[in-house]
Amino acid sequence: MSPENQVKAGIVNQSVRTIVLTTRGQGLYEFTETLSSWLSEQEIQTGLLTVFCRHTSASLLIQENADPTVQHDIKAYFSRLAPENGPYEHNDEGADDMPAHLKTALTQIQLSIPLVNGRLVLGTWQGVYLFEHRVRPHRREIVLHLIGE
Amino acid sequence: MSPENQVKAGIVNQSVRTIVLTTRGQGLYEFTETLSSWLSEQEIQTGLLTVFCRHTSASLLIQENADPTVQHDIKAYFSRLAPENGPYEHNDEGADDMPAHLKTALTQIQLSIPLVNGRLVLGTWQGVYLFEHRVRPHRREIVLHLIGE
Amino acid sequence: MSPENQVKAGIVNQSVRTIVLTTRGQGLYEFTETLSSWLSEQEIQTGLLTVFCRHTSASLLIQENADPTVQHDIKAYFSRLAPENGPYEHNDEGADDMPAHLKTALTQIQLSIPLVNGRLVLGTWQGVYLFEHRVRPHRREIVLHLIGE
Repeated sequence: MSPENQVKAGIVNQSVRTIVLTTRGQGLYEFTETLSSWLSEQEIQTGLLTVFCRHTSASLLIQENADPTVQHDIKAYFSRLAPENGPYEHNDEGADDMPAHLKTALTQIQLSIPLVNGRLVLGTWQGVYLFEHRVRPHRREIVLHLIGE
Repeated sequence: MSPENQVKAGIVNQSVRTIVLTTRGQGLYEFTETLSSWLSEQEIQTGLLTVFCRHTSASLLIQENADPTVQHDIKAYFSRLAPENGPYEHNDEGADDMPAHLKTALTQIQLSIPLVNGRLVLGTWQGVYLFEHRVRPHRREIVLHLIGE
Repeated sequence: MSPENQVKAGIVNQSVRTIVLTTRGQGLYEFTETLSSWLSEQEIQTGLLTVFCRHTSASLLIQENADPTVQHDIKAYFSRLAPENGPYEHNDEGADDMPAHLKTALTQIQLSIPLVNGRLVLGTWQGVYLFEHRVRPHRREIVLHLIGE
């Protein structure tokens, strides 16, 4: 992407879609390709993509997608930072319940990424991940909202 | 919300408003209804709502609004994670001053939530909260920005 | 900014620019003025500015810009929270490598700030910072995306 200023004017366009990601236990699930694939079908070339996670026990992260040990270390770190054996009042759904809420609070529920010339402006090593905090398999709904022209 | 792709085109509309939330000590204050009420008065049906907190000692969270013990556990957890008795240089406004900045850094100052058919795409259990980190009562200014059509 | 509701309608405009910030070691680097300067050159008066960091070992924060000890305490706190001597598998680039990824995950890669009457709606004490997590000097690319009218 050129560092030059790009200015666009025109009729606003928006696209919205809900995607479902299936998880099989705690960890990071990359879905950058799913985003790129959906974006390639939209007419919008310059705009803003917002990714929104409709849950309180799973979250979003942009992280390194080159070395898988980074994702392993992130998962292990957050399990130390928000351990299962904490002094929690809320544990309706098991030992991983409240840590899941805390890990979600510590990371993101929503990410917005600019789009230029039809491509996300992600850095070379950046991938977009769903961070699943529950042990059992889940279906996670992610809303994609794109505005631009 | 249907998982189908929705595409809209037209003249862009924007609405901006500042709301004030009054807090009475540390904890989570839900204001999802305030957002929904304001949105119901706007003409925009599909778009992006951005919620921005104009402070550095209070922040924003989307969390579970079903069981109040979740909110209690979140408040208690962050007070353990950023304790009042840390080795801080900055304590101009008391023992809760620097922990308030740290809790703000660990959570969010801004949230963007897509709007579809006039409704926020929040999940079933998601509520939008102001997370007050100061002990004394405060007036907190939150800017709402809506763009869409 | 008036708390009154402001409603705007018109042709959408967008501006995109990549800026480069040079860092000299870990810490917070304020670039609020850089944002304001760029915004003053754009025609858009009401809209949404998104700031996106294209890296996984540096992040973004909005924090107090009045007392420099706040920034010092934030830097020191995150170095305690994500220490260099953790049980990490990933350390390709040195002891500050994995802590940098963790500090990035705990803070933000992206911030969106409403613009009203040509000015960001930042609070009195809020400044926008790049939070550098690596020890060696780096060039950091930040994408600015503005949409509005």
